[in-house]
Amino acid sequence: MSVPAHLSLVTLGVTDLARSVAFYEALGWHQSSASEGTIAFFSLGGTNLALYGVEALADDALQSAQGGGFRGVTLAINALSVEGVDRMLASFVAAGATVVKVPQEAEWGGYSGYVADPDGHLWELAYNPYSPEWAAPGSE
Amino acid sequence: MSVPAHLSLVTLGVTDLARSVAFYEALGWHQSSASEGTIAFFSLGGTNLALYGVEALADDALQSAQGGGFRGVTLAINALSVEGVDRMLASFVAAGATVVKVPQEAEWGGYSGYVADPDGHLWELAYNPYSPEWAAPGSE
Repeated sequence: MSVPAHLSLVTLGVTDLARSVAFYEALGWHQSSASEGTIAFFSLGGTNLALYGVEALADDALQSAQGGGFRGVTLAINALSVEGVDRMLASFVAAGATVVKVPQEAEWGGYSGYVADPDGHLWELAYNPYSPEWAAPGSE
Repeated sequence: MSVPAHLSLVTLGVTDLARSVAFYEALGWHQSSASEGTIAFFSLGGTNLALYGVEALADDALQSAQGGGFRGVTLAINALSVEGVDRMLASFVAAGATVVKVPQEAEWGGYSGYVADPDGHLWELAYNPYSPEWAAPGSE
């Protein structure tokens, strides 16, 4: 028995759905037709992002919503160049993201920075010259 | 300016890389050639999963690694049927996952359960009859 190596959705728990939707739409992302009143979906090219109230998400997984500090999860969008990373950073900032780490040369030979969404979910923006196939199309 | 709607990587911070690699390999997943000594990558069909030490991941994002409780992030693999969900659950359990929520009919009309990986990262296993295009190929 095995599990298909596939990711259907990443769901981020949010404290203010309208605020988070506005943030991701300000990146130029469009909600998919699956969005309903309490949950929003965005297609991310092969997988999907869901935004859902953090209390409801915890309830769905039978968890307490209590938590804090480092979440131990990061999401990354790779670009095809250093300039592509800088452009993504500028767009995130324009949408209201917090800069967590200014993009810089990384020990592993690439270029990487971090931003946070309105709930502190961390997005890494990176150029990885060794894995160009991971990069977003059109991110030169 | 906009950001490509794309997800290159989800990185999970782990406390024992070898244990986590063994867990995901036990699902039948294969590391990609990008894996190195301290970081492991798995292709998830359109995006990628990375496993990296939680302290190193926090350091990379200039964060304290301290944290606890609900992480506010879940990952989901959708199947094309209820039976596909049950089969995925059995495979996760065989790999050593903890069952967090036994799959059951969901209020939204689907079928969904949750398992946790060795570090407590939550995976939802779901059948969503309204969005079959999100399901893993071959997950009937």
